[in-house]
Amino acid sequence: MKTMLKNDTFLRACRREPVDYTPVWIMRQAGRYMKEYRAIRKKVDFLTMCKTPELVTEATLLPVEILGVDAAILFSDILIPVEAMGLEVRFTEKRGPVFSNPVRSESGLEGLSILNLPESVERMPFIKESIRLILEALDNRLPLIGFSGAPFTLATYMIEGETSKNFTWIKRIMYDNPAFLHKLLDKITTTIINYLEMQINAGVHAVQLFDTWAGSLGPVDYQEFALPYTERVIKGIKETGCPIILFANGVSSILEFMGNSGADVAGLDWRIDIGDARKRVGNMVALQGNLDPCVLYARPPVIKKYAKNILDRYGSGPGHIFNLGHGILPDTPVEHAKALIEIVHEESGKR
Amino acid sequence: MKTMLKNDTFLRACRREPVDYTPVWIMRQAGRYMKEYRAIRKKVDFLTMCKTPELVTEATLLPVEILGVDAAILFSDILIPVEAMGLEVRFTEKRGPVFSNPVRSESGLEGLSILNLPESVERMPFIKESIRLILEALDNRLPLIGFSGAPFTLATYMIEGETSKNFTWIKRIMYDNPAFLHKLLDKITTTIINYLEMQINAGVHAVQLFDTWAGSLGPVDYQEFALPYTERVIKGIKETGCPIILFANGVSSILEFMGNSGADVAGLDWRIDIGDARKRVGNMVALQGNLDPCVLYARPPVIKKYAKNILDRYGSGPGHIFNLGHGILPDTPVEHAKALIEIVHEESGKR
Repeated sequence: MKTMLKNDTFLRACRREPVDYTPVWIMRQAGRYMKEYRAIRKKVDFLTMCKTPELVTEATLLPVEILGVDAAILFSDILIPVEAMGLEVRFTEKRGPVFSNPVRSESGLEGLSILNLPESVERMPFIKESIRLILEALDNRLPLIGFSGAPFTLATYMIEGETSKNFTWIKRIMYDNPAFLHKLLDKITTTIINYLEMQINAGVHAVQLFDTWAGSLGPVDYQEFALPYTERVIKGIKETGCPIILFANGVSSILEFMGNSGADVAGLDWRIDIGDARKRVGNMVALQGNLDPCVLYARPPVIKKYAKNILDRYGSGPGHIFNLGHGILPDTPVEHAKALIEIVHEESGKR
Repeated sequence: MKTMLKNDTFLRACRREPVDYTPVWIMRQAGRYMKEYRAIRKKVDFLTMCKTPELVTEATLLPVEILGVDAAILFSDILIPVEAMGLEVRFTEKRGPVFSNPVRSESGLEGLSILNLPESVERMPFIKESIRLILEALDNRLPLIGFSGAPFTLATYMIEGETSKNFTWIKRIMYDNPAFLHKLLDKITTTIINYLEMQINAGVHAVQLFDTWAGSLGPVDYQEFALPYTERVIKGIKETGCPIILFANGVSSILEFMGNSGADVAGLDWRIDIGDARKRVGNMVALQGNLDPCVLYARPPVIKKYAKNILDRYGSGPGHIFNLGHGILPDTPVEHAKALIEIVHEESGKR
């Protein structure tokens, strides 16, 4: 059994229970925009950092100490379980993650491991150990969020081989050889269920599924290639009782599907009015979001205007977790991120 | 007065008048995916090609002859009037368009020309001459579409200086110095009205406004920085009676605004169900779209399945112009583009 958290506002909001103020955290809150983060990264490459529990713990705690967020999120990368499935990944400064052997052939597909629970732990021992150390360091102050990429989004990386603009490789396969993509998605789905279960067993208090690229699909394709697998993941971990946040980029055309997916929270990008989103799915899920990350370039009075507008548009009653609509950008001033947290706390506590 | 066109199906659909079948054209239909286009491009650089009326005419006519589309669109680039405003632009193979002096300072802004009608013609004589030659070559077979970037989209290029991922420069200015952006948008708007009027006077039968990047804005910003300027452009050319298509990428969260903008047609990207879009705005505008460009990678039976689904979802009655949801990709097989045109004609003619 989990012990009581000193600040469980985030978890209460996930469950749409009453809260004293709107909880807030920031996607990619431990990141390059912090000089303390850059200092850690100077010592080791990105992948080594992800695999060193002491450094993971240090990074995970940074925004807790510096910003005063209402939840910590495990510092890691969505491609960690993909590497554990057998794909070699390198992180380059310029191109981001690059796979030497993208999965585009039957033999590539056959060569991938499906990770069942003991095997996942074995191949990614640093995840379990990181969670243990972070929980120790958090000392029940705040909840810890675990996460994974959703199946379609991970398949995109695995097939494209690197960050893609038009997703031409995966879509070529999707339209020309859908059976191949379904087989890959099936393997990823089983892996992710076990990967998230491992994190939940290790003690994370909530999980976020990043279906970042699902918004690049038209509704017909989303219903065939993204939604069913995301739903299987959610079903697979649902009985743990751990709150599940489903995030996508470009939610406007898939929001009802997200609301019906079994997730507890729908994570919104910034291109939708959160008041409209609440009208559409607020009776089914809590909502997370949704400030344009670029607003944090502006001076605090401007940040306040935009943040207040989101709080106003969401309106009264529980079920809102404040966040950006996408990850914080590397050239964001830390003081602005800090100001955002204060603004959200202050403005929402007044209500 | 314009003489009668042999095939005016496209124009009738723009006006939501009855048609015998669903007209179809393809965004970027004269492009790198055609070997005939690549042959022209081998001779000259992209900008020279845009400024050589004989080559523009040749390129514009290619999809008419090869694909059998229902409308021709002037071969040009949305940055042509930006160059005429005084910004030096280069087109590179790798990075696309690049400005040597992006507009980020008051002096840069002051240095920009606003083009009134006689001046536009003077600085872009090749546009008027191209339209004259194309109309001659078309010989009243089909309508010719003129176009321009919409103010926000052009401002994005002018401030970013090149194709951008996160639009960090323009958004930094938007949030920190909105007055600057409004001044720039105002100059662009006046220029575009004159630019489009010049095209309409030269004889184009319809115009498309590309507000490609407006979908990167949240609804609050869209209503401040994109919509009012787009509406001013539409109002500025409305009395010509020339049908106006407003296209955006990521329409789902701004569709009602597009429907109310005064445009005759809303151009949809592929991430929205066209049936839903019709329910939302079909009583205000015709709809253009909206096949995922990647579907054209697939074999014709798959193309048929997806194209038929769009025709079915739109349903009966006039007001649909078939198109892709974005420009055709350079590695699309020409035969597949050809197959799409045939499929749309055949399947919609059956109704």
